[in-house]
Amino acid sequence: MQLVTVIGLVAAFCTTVSYIPQIRKIWATGETHDISLKMFLILAAGIALWVLYGVLRGDAVIILANSVSLAFLAAILFFKLRNVARGRG
Amino acid sequence: MQLVTVIGLVAAFCTTVSYIPQIRKIWATGETHDISLKMFLILAAGIALWVLYGVLRGDAVIILANSVSLAFLAAILFFKLRNVARGRG
Repeated sequence: MQLVTVIGLVAAFCTTVSYIPQIRKIWATGETHDISLKMFLILAAGIALWVLYGVLRGDAVIILANSVSLAFLAAILFFKLRNVARGRG
Repeated sequence: MQLVTVIGLVAAFCTTVSYIPQIRKIWATGETHDISLKMFLILAAGIALWVLYGVLRGDAVIILANSVSLAFLAAILFFKLRNVARGRG
């Protein structure tokens, strides 16, 4: 495997798993007040478009990495929106 | 321009500008307590690797989108680390 491919895979791995500590933090504290709803909505929309891009290009790595990211972002958005609905951001 | 290219550009635009509302929120409130330092550190490391990937592949779009994202993430990390240093996460 070429070095550039390895770098791309490590990059995709980092950007995908990065959301896990945020989910764990919200899980532990229940707090989402300082998290921007707009940021995570726009980010999720962008990641969803990357999945579509991967599908149209037939690129399995792009589809997989971004689908997992989208699932993590959906979890963060779930907690944020639940708190917003409860009136505590 | 092909539809798939347009989708990729819109996806890159969304994921890049998504950080702006988070920066504005921190700027307005000064609070970063609910934001995971680990998430933004790992995300920034991953985005930095995407810049390197773009350089090695000679892909200007990947370099540009991820360099701008990295600058926004650096701003969020600056505020978070400053608050951590001040003992208020």
